[in-house]
Amino acid sequence: MIEIETCKSVDVIDITDRVLRTLQESSIENGILLVYSLHTTTGLTINEADGALINDILSLLQRIAPRGAGYLHDTGDGNAHAHLQATLLGNSLVIPVEMGRLIMGVWQRILFFELDGPRRRSIFVRVLSDLCEKTG
Amino acid sequence: MIEIETCKSVDVIDITDRVLRTLQESSIENGILLVYSLHTTTGLTINEADGALINDILSLLQRIAPRGAGYLHDTGDGNAHAHLQATLLGNSLVIPVEMGRLIMGVWQRILFFELDGPRRRSIFVRVLSDLCEKTG
Amino acid sequence: MIEIETCKSVDVIDITDRVLRTLQESSIENGILLVYSLHTTTGLTINEADGALINDILSLLQRIAPRGAGYLHDTGDGNAHAHLQATLLGNSLVIPVEMGRLIMGVWQRILFFELDGPRRRSIFVRVLSDLCEKTG
Repeated sequence: MIEIETCKSVDVIDITDRVLRTLQESSIENGILLVYSLHTTTGLTINEADGALINDILSLLQRIAPRGAGYLHDTGDGNAHAHLQATLLGNSLVIPVEMGRLIMGVWQRILFFELDGPRRRSIFVRVLSDLCEKTG
Repeated sequence: MIEIETCKSVDVIDITDRVLRTLQESSIENGILLVYSLHTTTGLTINEADGALINDILSLLQRIAPRGAGYLHDTGDGNAHAHLQATLLGNSLVIPVEMGRLIMGVWQRILFFELDGPRRRSIFVRVLSDLCEKTG
Repeated sequence: MIEIETCKSVDVIDITDRVLRTLQESSIENGILLVYSLHTTTGLTINEADGALINDILSLLQRIAPRGAGYLHDTGDGNAHAHLQATLLGNSLVIPVEMGRLIMGVWQRILFFELDGPRRRSIFVRVLSDLCEKTG
């Protein structure tokens, strides 16, 4: 489990290295890796970890689902926009594993989106081996 | 396979308990679970099962891809908006399994979106064990 | 690995048959299949392979994240819109496998979206067996 303390209401964190560490601890050589956020107002996506691009993504999310736009859910927590933005991003990623490494493209990084912080957030990482298929 | 008869043109159904039942029948302790909708005008997402929020999500989908907005595909079935909304939500979910339970956050529920009902819908659930990695 | 040479700046390719061939080569009977694009300006989605609908999806992406709309990332490659559209589609798909076949609905096809071509693109396919669960 990767634990993150986010610092702002909206925050994007590159968690690629932490995910890699979990993969190395598993000592699994071939299979797949699942990254799963346990929250309903966060998102996970794979893209380039360029600050300008990340701000473009945040602007897009804010344009599609702006904060406080008269949502029904806002009579409660006032965070409906964060739920909507999270729905568009999705809360999990699956990545292939080969020879103990993640199969990712040159520009691909695993980005965690905090959309209703600051909060303590938990991301579960599970590595699944395909060992049995080869030896069975 | 989870079979659902939807009642309206647009309908959101919390299928968490039915998915859990499939997990229990598999008697798999650790691994991952895949929920997969076999349709092109439905969606699956994980979020809070709050009626107000669900209506906010439906309003967002209708705002992004409104019904009958002059789509090319509408000369056919007239359901292009449902295909577009389904594309934004995605048609599958992957969830970690630990000690026979789904690893989900307090507010997370598995929501099935009917976007072109009423119809009979099928959702496939597959549980994959990581048993072999531990015993291999 | 599926290698594709895209021909246009925006291009949609039905890769279902190529994915099926990879599945057949694996000779795995039951499990899941992961399709994973190694790029940050491409997308993968499952929907109907109807030309009119595909154009509707491309129009939607162009409407949500139009090319050259003053993005911060555009001072670099000028392809921020492609990154944003890729984020909305996602870069991977997971599909159940049963008796050596993909469990997909009648209208479902695996669609690869080139959003910043023409380029050479790579899509990784991994099949994971649940054999061990049954024999373990």
